[in-house]
Amino acid sequence: WTHLELKRYFGIDTLLNEDTAESVWDQTNEALQSPEFSTRSLLAGKKVVVICTTDDAADSLEHHKAYMSNRNEEELVMCPTFRPDNAMKVEDPAAFKAYVQSLEAASGVDIDDYDAFVKALRLRHDHFDTLGCRASDHGIEEPYAEPYTEKEVAETFQRVLRGESVPESEANKFKSAMMYEFAVMDFEKGWTFQMHIGALRNNNTRGFRELGADKGFDSIGDLQIARPLSRFLDRLEIDNQLPRTIIYNLNPADNALISTMIGNFMGDGTPGKVQHGPAWWFHDQKEGMEEHLQTLSNMSLLNRFIGMVTDSRSFLSFPRHEYYRRTLCNMLGTDIEQGIIPGDYDMVGDLVERLCYSNAIAHFSYQKLPRSTS
Amino acid sequence: WTHLELKRYFGIDTLLNEDTAESVWDQTNEALQSPEFSTRSLLAGKKVVVICTTDDAADSLEHHKAYMSNRNEEELVMCPTFRPDNAMKVEDPAAFKAYVQSLEAASGVDIDDYDAFVKALRLRHDHFDTLGCRASDHGIEEPYAEPYTEKEVAETFQRVLRGESVPESEANKFKSAMMYEFAVMDFEKGWTFQMHIGALRNNNTRGFRELGADKGFDSIGDLQIARPLSRFLDRLEIDNQLPRTIIYNLNPADNALISTMIGNFMGDGTPGKVQHGPAWWFHDQKEGMEEHLQTLSNMSLLNRFIGMVTDSRSFLSFPRHEYYRRTLCNMLGTDIEQGIIPGDYDMVGDLVERLCYSNAIAHFSYQKLPRSTS
Amino acid sequence: WTHLELKRYFGIDTLLNEDTAESVWDQTNEALQSPEFSTRSLLAGKKVVVICTTDDAADSLEHHKAYMSNRNEEELVMCPTFRPDNAMKVEDPAAFKAYVQSLEAASGVDIDDYDAFVKALRLRHDHFDTLGCRASDHGIEEPYAEPYTEKEVAETFQRVLRGESVPESEANKFKSAMMYEFAVMDFEKGWTFQMHIGALRNNNTRGFRELGADKGFDSIGDLQIARPLSRFLDRLEIDNQLPRTIIYNLNPADNALISTMIGNFMGDGTPGKVQHGPAWWFHDQKEGMEEHLQTLSNMSLLNRFIGMVTDSRSFLSFPRHEYYRRTLCNMLGTDIEQGIIPGDYDMVGDLVERLCYSNAIAHFSYQKLPRSTS
Repeated sequence: WTHLELKRYFGIDTLLNEDTAESVWDQTNEALQSPEFSTRSLLAGKKVVVICTTDDAADSLEHHKAYMSNRNEEELVMCPTFRPDNAMKVEDPAAFKAYVQSLEAASGVDIDDYDAFVKALRLRHDHFDTLGCRASDHGIEEPYAEPYTEKEVAETFQRVLRGESVPESEANKFKSAMMYEFAVMDFEKGWTFQMHIGALRNNNTRGFRELGADKGFDSIGDLQIARPLSRFLDRLEIDNQLPRTIIYNLNPADNALISTMIGNFMGDGTPGKVQHGPAWWFHDQKEGMEEHLQTLSNMSLLNRFIGMVTDSRSFLSFPRHEYYRRTLCNMLGTDIEQGIIPGDYDMVGDLVERLCYSNAIAHFSYQKLPRSTS
Repeated sequence: WTHLELKRYFGIDTLLNEDTAESVWDQTNEALQSPEFSTRSLLAGKKVVVICTTDDAADSLEHHKAYMSNRNEEELVMCPTFRPDNAMKVEDPAAFKAYVQSLEAASGVDIDDYDAFVKALRLRHDHFDTLGCRASDHGIEEPYAEPYTEKEVAETFQRVLRGESVPESEANKFKSAMMYEFAVMDFEKGWTFQMHIGALRNNNTRGFRELGADKGFDSIGDLQIARPLSRFLDRLEIDNQLPRTIIYNLNPADNALISTMIGNFMGDGTPGKVQHGPAWWFHDQKEGMEEHLQTLSNMSLLNRFIGMVTDSRSFLSFPRHEYYRRTLCNMLGTDIEQGIIPGDYDMVGDLVERLCYSNAIAHFSYQKLPRSTS
Repeated sequence: WTHLELKRYFGIDTLLNEDTAESVWDQTNEALQSPEFSTRSLLAGKKVVVICTTDDAADSLEHHKAYMSNRNEEELVMCPTFRPDNAMKVEDPAAFKAYVQSLEAASGVDIDDYDAFVKALRLRHDHFDTLGCRASDHGIEEPYAEPYTEKEVAETFQRVLRGESVPESEANKFKSAMMYEFAVMDFEKGWTFQMHIGALRNNNTRGFRELGADKGFDSIGDLQIARPLSRFLDRLEIDNQLPRTIIYNLNPADNALISTMIGNFMGDGTPGKVQHGPAWWFHDQKEGMEEHLQTLSNMSLLNRFIGMVTDSRSFLSFPRHEYYRRTLCNMLGTDIEQGIIPGDYDMVGDLVERLCYSNAIAHFSYQKLPRSTS
């Protein structure tokens, strides 16, 4: 994308290398001073309709509040996304306790037991909803789905709050309970439950100590996910509380597994209810996208796919969507040339429109949000 | 294949979509009334020589008996396939007990202990053989190969028959014993032992309760199979009782593993003795077949492959074989064009003939069956 | 390669098949009598600069000594490679004890405890270094990285020496300790630590008994490697003792895992410090190489790759390098044609030179060795 970003935003068409680096640096820095490169201009320039941030469950969302109250009708909608990963990290009692305190402050609930903990999270969930939140997001190494009782989980909560460390099996029960609770909350509000699975994080302890998390020391894991993922979804389905769900997997060896797994839980009347999320992280390049789309097309229903969901934090990263659209159209065009799919431009054009726009709007119910008129 | 089926059987060449659905429905229903669409006509039209059904080990096979006694020489041969999956399902004591009773009825053996149980199954195996059976088939999540003693397994049998539930480790020992026994029976009769591994079944409990098994709630599993599969085959090889074997795997991430595993057990004088079975279930589409064939070609001997073995229950599904043949020839033709294999039409033509017909005939010893003259 | 070998060495351009086999046999046997087919001529003909053998840690290296003392400046350099696999095989106490004795003889150390054992291995390591060794090599099923204490490992050593068999968990702790020690030795000398993981060996017990190890009864394993591999590398990184490392993996389903894992441990100032080793064993064919290069290119830095490292024991196998170079150039050329990478011949040419020659020279510090002038 780097070259696509240089071209689309800065009109720079030369190759980035040792010789051109300095001049590209100068050109782009100059451009960044101009008013067209304000965040709002950049987003307006790409005709962005909705943008979703990622926010800790204890976040005050004050910027969302401020934006929404000042927003004029033509501007894009900005939704928070509910990310309660910290509410699951019982493996670090001190950090967990600090997090519980921040949750107390944010929710106004005295959290002295597990029930109060869940109540506080639910109040945060309600609050996110009032600001237009349409989805939760969960970054987990594996889909936790251990059998547990409320009593066990409540006891684990107390132990961790007292500063005791708990064995991995007990922590996993706690995480299984939280995953279930969050999914039920999402179901009740019509949100989408997003899980990002398969990353092995903070592999380099020295790098982690020096620079902290999310600094390039993560890679792809290889845990067995089929059985727990099935149990997680099934438990919710049995209780009639399975929300719309997106499973983003990081290990491409699991692509076929995920694309077939989603077919088990399509529910009644919600086409594309459970999604095999788009190529993510290491995979949001041409071949990663192609592999994901081919697997989905071979083993599931391509035309229900919600399309690219970049999690980039850069306001210049929107050419990634163009990159995805070009990759998608290149695949479909090649298939037409080879006679694999019909050269019916209306049909294929409709498919492209769905996979680039309307499926995502429908899946997240964005049509219900206050809309920009542009 | 849908379009290939419409074209080959009904002469319908239009695209199936919302607009054409009703007219296609009418045309095909009308055609289905005609005598050419009787089961026998359909099979004769495709020049089918042998067809193999799948039959529970306790099945009376009365239809096979009736067909074989009335069959004239020009008609196809119909063989049963021995499928004793129910004889392994000790995790459900009630269903297991009922199955043992049906086995008593079918075999005439009083089954009061494990030895009698194996004896009854062996009698059924003998009976299948008299009706031309050439293979057994085993649908298992993983290749069971736990160490066990006859005494342990006999005790498990008694416990289950008394209605007790047994732990998974004990059940797996029982299944390991049964797998071994079935393979030995196959070896003694010169049958082929087929195992279908890697499916995770009945993922949706609500769907299972409402609709039962095999109703679209299955997907791909990710258990570790290398060590148990090796142990299973090795144990038989040590005892000089490894039958011809076909391993069908559902997780494509294991393709390379299987294609190299079969090379360990090629035995003496039986080329292609252990087979990496053709692309199956989710994989019997163009890319699934191509991946399977490429892996086999890169890591094993393509020219020993027995070719496509559709397990479809539809009499209109034979274009799937055409689809496979076209996919195979497309790959070989592309390789010739790129100079990867020699453009020697006799050599490549011979390869195609083997992979579409004669290897399968030889592997299953169909040449020994009473043959149709057509 | 077979045809490339016939063509490059023997000038035979006809297809090898049943008809031509005898004449090819005769032609090649005749040629092999000629002086051009002496080992030294073959290597000189291919302009080989460095060749690395694989040698047991207890090997006397007498041939290396003899070669190095008689070598004239124009001849290639021959380096030993330190392979201490036998020092880890505590699962067979008798063989282990015999190995300890051969190590005593080679090192002159009385090995009566674990410390003396490590000391003897370190002396061998020193000795290999004096003869130009630049790397160790470790053939392991999985990357051992269990937590252990020196005391535990020392006790295991004594038990095994007394002829006792130890449980797998204890053996794995021992192996974890040895892996760590070998890596530290390599770090101190600036050697490269090579690990070959993912093979499941000696699957066919009967074949193993009749023919021994490495006789075609090995295949691809599927153990979970992400967490132990991360722990192994991290432990060394924490102690600032991670050597340059090459990870060769046999299961292609782990390609993405490995290509991202290496990015976690790039260290300071050593570009390409940890390498995803080239397509190996079952994968040193066109598609295996392409898959490896594509994964590396998509998820890591292709231009740091050290290129093909054939472990063939055949002096006629050098066309394998040509095969790799052609495969690499074919991929890059196709990318240029499709506009995926720039058609900048200097840039791409430089990349090819690095991936075929100079990266390997730099990684193994071969430039410090006495060099041939050719």
